[in-house]
Amino acid sequence: MADEPKHIVSSFEADLKKLRDMIANMGGLVERAVADASSALVNHDPELASRVIENDSRINTEQHNVEQFAVRLLALRQPVADDLRQVIQALKVVNDLERVGDYAANIAKRSIVINQVASNFPLAGLGQMARLVQQNLQASIDTVGESDPQKAIAVWRADQMVDDLYNTIFRELITYMMEDARNITACTHLMFIAKNLERIGDHTTNIAELTYYAITGENLPDFRPKGDVTSTYVHTTTN
Amino acid sequence: MADEPKHIVSSFEADLKKLRDMIANMGGLVERAVADASSALVNHDPELASRVIENDSRINTEQHNVEQFAVRLLALRQPVADDLRQVIQALKVVNDLERVGDYAANIAKRSIVINQVASNFPLAGLGQMARLVQQNLQASIDTVGESDPQKAIAVWRADQMVDDLYNTIFRELITYMMEDARNITACTHLMFIAKNLERIGDHTTNIAELTYYAITGENLPDFRPKGDVTSTYVHTTTN
Repeated sequence: MADEPKHIVSSFEADLKKLRDMIANMGGLVERAVADASSALVNHDPELASRVIENDSRINTEQHNVEQFAVRLLALRQPVADDLRQVIQALKVVNDLERVGDYAANIAKRSIVINQVASNFPLAGLGQMARLVQQNLQASIDTVGESDPQKAIAVWRADQMVDDLYNTIFRELITYMMEDARNITACTHLMFIAKNLERIGDHTTNIAELTYYAITGENLPDFRPKGDVTSTYVHTTTN
Repeated sequence: MADEPKHIVSSFEADLKKLRDMIANMGGLVERAVADASSALVNHDPELASRVIENDSRINTEQHNVEQFAVRLLALRQPVADDLRQVIQALKVVNDLERVGDYAANIAKRSIVINQVASNFPLAGLGQMARLVQQNLQASIDTVGESDPQKAIAVWRADQMVDDLYNTIFRELITYMMEDARNITACTHLMFIAKNLERIGDHTTNIAELTYYAITGENLPDFRPKGDVTSTYVHTTTN
């Protein structure tokens, strides 16, 4: 690119900035979806839940727009090195964001059922998990387009607390189901809601990994150990 | 590209072929992982399950290799139009395949627990669902690099049967849990296994959509309605 006239290079910078702005905009919609879905669950607000479900198509449209723009950038600007990495990162980040939107919509759907079948069920643990997930999601979206790899690493590590909370909630829900069969339908939905939040946490770490890669050109040194241990959970009781 | 010497064009064709071969190779590993995880579950074979879990890192490595190769292609060959779409498709397909590998590993993990806590549990429905998912996955991987959009549409539609089976299995598992609290741990794992298979079905339709896009340059005309209705399931009983 060194031999090209300056206005061409600047214009590519402008394109990259537009790409980052589009991601920030989509990220804002996704953060809002997660916050609203969590609020709809904890505050038993089926109308808010319905809005989250309706708005999911806007998130999908945004993903499509970012992809179209990124592919056009690749075709017209033919970026290399750092610039190419930034465009590839954009394509992958919006893929993660779209999935987070899907999980938020699924939480919203299930929250409507919870409201019908178990409007008095204790939801404090899930509320706490949801707040933590939202914080990490926002921090990870903020790292996109920034140049501090340490910040990306910090976000990446913060997911461990989400996993720990998930494990605790999973065990509690199994216990509730054991205690009273009438809890089973609600607890099944709550279990999938917890799993959705845990998956949102995984996508959050993915975004942080992608930022790290975009900045440094390298993958994170080792894979973060998966903190979800519920796949091998066996309930034991002394009763 | 029209003015370039023929050997350059041919060499890019060779690169695209290599890319397709790499995807086919990774696809083979992923198909094998799903088949082995299902077999480990249905035939109570924890050793096979352990191999699936161990082999997941090979799938991740393959994804990484395809990505590296695709990004190098973008940087060095700077493809446009159809060629660019094929490289973008490759990047996205391997993302789906990697996720399918993760789901297979998770099924394998849970199958080990099922073997410990419920070795006599009826698994015929899950076995049937797993076979259908494997068939569709193989068909969708076969469409990559082919030029028949109708074939991609057929694969895309076939997922409806997977969703129908998932809904049936979900209802059955809730009933088992209601009948006897000692079934709860096993049924919870079986529910997540069924969900994993359903998600593999979703990634299968994604791959078919990506093939359709790579061939035609257009997205599929309308979104396939999601056949998973369990998010709004409420158990009702006359007992």
